[in-house]
Amino acid sequence: MSKKVGFIGLGIMGSRMAANLLAAGIDLAVYNRTREKADALIGRGAVWHDTPARLGASVEGVFTMLSDPEAVAQTALGSDGFLTALQPGAFWVDCSTVNPSFSREMAAEAQKGRIRFVDAPVFGSKQPAQEGQLPFFAGGKIEDIEALEPYFNIMGKSVRHVGDAGMGASIKMVLNILLAQNMLIFSEAVALGQALGFTRETLFEIILGGPMAAPYLGLKSKKIEEGVYEPDFPLKWMHKDLHLVGLTAFEAGVPLPSCALAKEIFQEAKQAGLADKDFAVLFDRITAGKRKKQ
Amino acid sequence: MSKKVGFIGLGIMGSRMAANLLAAGIDLAVYNRTREKADALIGRGAVWHDTPARLGASVEGVFTMLSDPEAVAQTALGSDGFLTALQPGAFWVDCSTVNPSFSREMAAEAQKGRIRFVDAPVFGSKQPAQEGQLPFFAGGKIEDIEALEPYFNIMGKSVRHVGDAGMGASIKMVLNILLAQNMLIFSEAVALGQALGFTRETLFEIILGGPMAAPYLGLKSKKIEEGVYEPDFPLKWMHKDLHLVGLTAFEAGVPLPSCALAKEIFQEAKQAGLADKDFAVLFDRITAGKRKKQ
Amino acid sequence: MSKKVGFIGLGIMGSRMAANLLAAGIDLAVYNRTREKADALIGRGAVWHDTPARLGASVEGVFTMLSDPEAVAQTALGSDGFLTALQPGAFWVDCSTVNPSFSREMAAEAQKGRIRFVDAPVFGSKQPAQEGQLPFFAGGKIEDIEALEPYFNIMGKSVRHVGDAGMGASIKMVLNILLAQNMLIFSEAVALGQALGFTRETLFEIILGGPMAAPYLGLKSKKIEEGVYEPDFPLKWMHKDLHLVGLTAFEAGVPLPSCALAKEIFQEAKQAGLADKDFAVLFDRITAGKRKKQ
Amino acid sequence: MSKKVGFIGLGIMGSRMAANLLAAGIDLAVYNRTREKADALIGRGAVWHDTPARLGASVEGVFTMLSDPEAVAQTALGSDGFLTALQPGAFWVDCSTVNPSFSREMAAEAQKGRIRFVDAPVFGSKQPAQEGQLPFFAGGKIEDIEALEPYFNIMGKSVRHVGDAGMGASIKMVLNILLAQNMLIFSEAVALGQALGFTRETLFEIILGGPMAAPYLGLKSKKIEEGVYEPDFPLKWMHKDLHLVGLTAFEAGVPLPSCALAKEIFQEAKQAGLADKDFAVLFDRITAGKRKKQ
Repeated sequence: MSKKVGFIGLGIMGSRMAANLLAAGIDLAVYNRTREKADALIGRGAVWHDTPARLGASVEGVFTMLSDPEAVAQTALGSDGFLTALQPGAFWVDCSTVNPSFSREMAAEAQKGRIRFVDAPVFGSKQPAQEGQLPFFAGGKIEDIEALEPYFNIMGKSVRHVGDAGMGASIKMVLNILLAQNMLIFSEAVALGQALGFTRETLFEIILGGPMAAPYLGLKSKKIEEGVYEPDFPLKWMHKDLHLVGLTAFEAGVPLPSCALAKEIFQEAKQAGLADKDFAVLFDRITAGKRKKQ
Repeated sequence: MSKKVGFIGLGIMGSRMAANLLAAGIDLAVYNRTREKADALIGRGAVWHDTPARLGASVEGVFTMLSDPEAVAQTALGSDGFLTALQPGAFWVDCSTVNPSFSREMAAEAQKGRIRFVDAPVFGSKQPAQEGQLPFFAGGKIEDIEALEPYFNIMGKSVRHVGDAGMGASIKMVLNILLAQNMLIFSEAVALGQALGFTRETLFEIILGGPMAAPYLGLKSKKIEEGVYEPDFPLKWMHKDLHLVGLTAFEAGVPLPSCALAKEIFQEAKQAGLADKDFAVLFDRITAGKRKKQ
Repeated sequence: MSKKVGFIGLGIMGSRMAANLLAAGIDLAVYNRTREKADALIGRGAVWHDTPARLGASVEGVFTMLSDPEAVAQTALGSDGFLTALQPGAFWVDCSTVNPSFSREMAAEAQKGRIRFVDAPVFGSKQPAQEGQLPFFAGGKIEDIEALEPYFNIMGKSVRHVGDAGMGASIKMVLNILLAQNMLIFSEAVALGQALGFTRETLFEIILGGPMAAPYLGLKSKKIEEGVYEPDFPLKWMHKDLHLVGLTAFEAGVPLPSCALAKEIFQEAKQAGLADKDFAVLFDRITAGKRKKQ
Repeated sequence: MSKKVGFIGLGIMGSRMAANLLAAGIDLAVYNRTREKADALIGRGAVWHDTPARLGASVEGVFTMLSDPEAVAQTALGSDGFLTALQPGAFWVDCSTVNPSFSREMAAEAQKGRIRFVDAPVFGSKQPAQEGQLPFFAGGKIEDIEALEPYFNIMGKSVRHVGDAGMGASIKMVLNILLAQNMLIFSEAVALGQALGFTRETLFEIILGGPMAAPYLGLKSKKIEEGVYEPDFPLKWMHKDLHLVGLTAFEAGVPLPSCALAKEIFQEAKQAGLADKDFAVLFDRITAGKRKKQ
């Protein structure tokens, strides 16, 4: 791990992941669409490059953590993209949440230049990213993933090989269905409970920690109780992820009626101005007007 | 607790609850629409009555565990109903899953004859019923619930007073939304995962026990893995409960789009001949045709 | 038709139907929960009765046009109900929108007193009611419906016998699905069209009158263009009707996922304060924020 | 119109549209992925080309009628694509159903080579295509559309300019929502009606032709009555179109809950083996098991 590696995409998650690589002594090159987000990392020793291509030319591999497939395609394959700039044998680990067929396209593009492609989306949000506790699920060649394990161990607590290229993205689709839908069904259940006369406190106490609530809701309930939705995972990204689930289900020929409806409910919330808040704000929207005096 | 109490409704749950009362030395009178289901209890000392009314006349209180509001109304208020047969001061604990407004109607009917009414639906299914480990959530007067606590302690592991009459039924509505919906969203997530190339084993391993799965799904997954859907909680009752949720949401003026759709999906499963199987069979239905070789 | 007949329920529809009977020379007795709504009719010769029972005792038959099954049950069977006050051989025509199983219950109650029961909901709203142009679909005995045809011909343009008691209510359920759903899908189509850059005018011109739009939308579009939603058919009643459709589908064992979702969307609109506006206001709600400058 | 024009995509619709051009004396060059579908046209004088590029090099303009955006992109921009083969000033009219953003991308690609691009999806299916009675809605430059009007008048009964490039595709999205959804809501209404005891004949008679049914359902009802679903518009294409609507609504930020659910219901039908039947087969699927003896 003595060689220089690149990190592209320094948002909520990427900035924290990159900071952990830097803190572990990795020689880090960075790029971000808006440079200001790189300032803190540059201050701690990361080297800025003006384009993805220039970054690509200077590193033995690249991590990307971008917002959506379009951003990934632009950064990798655009006129200033890094992919053709990388040396044969270099690696590209895409940690962005993208749809599996897109990931497989990127793997095919990478292969043209003998770049080792791994799709390794992360699970969890701001805090585990900061603490290097993200679990990674990686698709690609097992030997590539093993070779990159030191990096994964710095940024995360574990990496699990789940199949060929695209399978990391695939498991992310599966888990994001549950992430989105659990918030929705929890919110509807509480909405009814409040309308029937229970306080939110009572409902949280009975539901959370019980056998019928996904454990992650316990964490999100703190945000809900404070009523401050500073984003760990912005609602617009959840909506985007559900959109990618929809694309994927279409390609796979799988009907997902409940999930498709959830996507539209997130769209309604986005349209109502909640795009940049944590997706837990859906709770407020669904339970609004049904809350008793606490 | 030396006086005789009655138990009406000896299905999957009721028969086990009644057996626990009997085993604890309670002098038990029983009635069921079809007498055969009472035979085992009669063999162990329970006293059979030919009508709810005759049972009512001989006991200091009645527990009911019936399939739906219609069955409760018929048994309590019908021409042979027990309610008018009970002595003033007797108790009626309705453990059936009914809608809150119906429960409040029953409370009002009970009050006419100075019967102490408690709605105390149970949470959990066959096994905790058998082991006396059911948690009860009870609506009614606190002093009535405290007086009846010895009975609840025999049949269950805890009783929690959640408010006036109807509030036991209310919390049941809230929790059943989660019970039904978690099975649905889990099934959709696995359906997509299987179509994307994961085995069911891998998906269960990654999802269950993780932060995005309601813990009860871990138990249900055993049934799913065996592929035998002997009912702990028949799908038709889950559908009926979602129907009661729908009635309740209508009365309360709460939109529950996701839950309403779930109800229709359970209806489709019922129509497809799965009414009498455990509701976990929904998993098979939703993932059918999307299963890879294991 | 020389004998006195009663009319109970003098809302938007009932007042107009009763006025037509009166104008045709029928000797009319009236009752309404709030008396003021009867004033205009009384001024034109209708005789007021203080209770449904007193009205029932004075007429050879009763028409009811009430808001929901609860109101019908209360008016017919309550402590001051008209049903037991009617003479054997009298008729009861229920024009209210109720669910079929409720209608059959009423038929059974009527039969106890040898009252001839017909369920004859109307199709259409304020204007055809006023002009005596309502089409009736009637369930009951064919000979009863034929005997009552003179009344139907005064209030409407046609009466069609569709089967036994309850079948009038049944066809109403079927048609109301279409009434509600057409407004919803039209609104969603226009919402998308506006977001894509078309004016509402262009969309109305292309869609309405074309093969893909239910003709009634052409009439409703006038209301939408004016943006004034004085109720011909209040949104809360449409929501109530969809609720009755839900009850009926549950009893009949028919999954209606699309209709169930529509009900929740109407519930959301009701919760947003639109209950008393014409149900076409759903259009505004769904297209809000997606409207281009016209 | 003395110069040679090309037609690419000779499926149900394209073959009929091309045949009309040929019959009108147009000098026609054709290409199709599978050559056999071109045989009848070749027999009547059309000139076959082995690749889209070779066709492009020989014509003054191209009409495309392909199954989806991927097919259009491949045929226009692929290694043998026609777009770079066309002369500057040539036209490309895409009659395929694609999403508006894709159409605008194609317009941009066309502009690079100074090709005049028009998106002109058609409305209607096999029979109006055959009879040259298709209505076209065209997006692009008004002068281009006017210049091409002679062609539109051969293949259709009218062409309406609805805006810039992409607006033809846009109006198609809007109308297809209605096409798909009307079939769904009609089917649900009839499913309930049949379960309540009406025959299909009675329901068709009451619903079709009435104010609550889109007129096109009257035509489709013939197919339903015969029970033979030879495709005028295959279900898989309707599903694909709903998928494009979903993409478009996502891009436009418009929630379409009802339409999103419809898409999943079409997906279920597709998964059940109905992909290649006319989309009216959805009626059979939804009303199955709810049909009374006729």
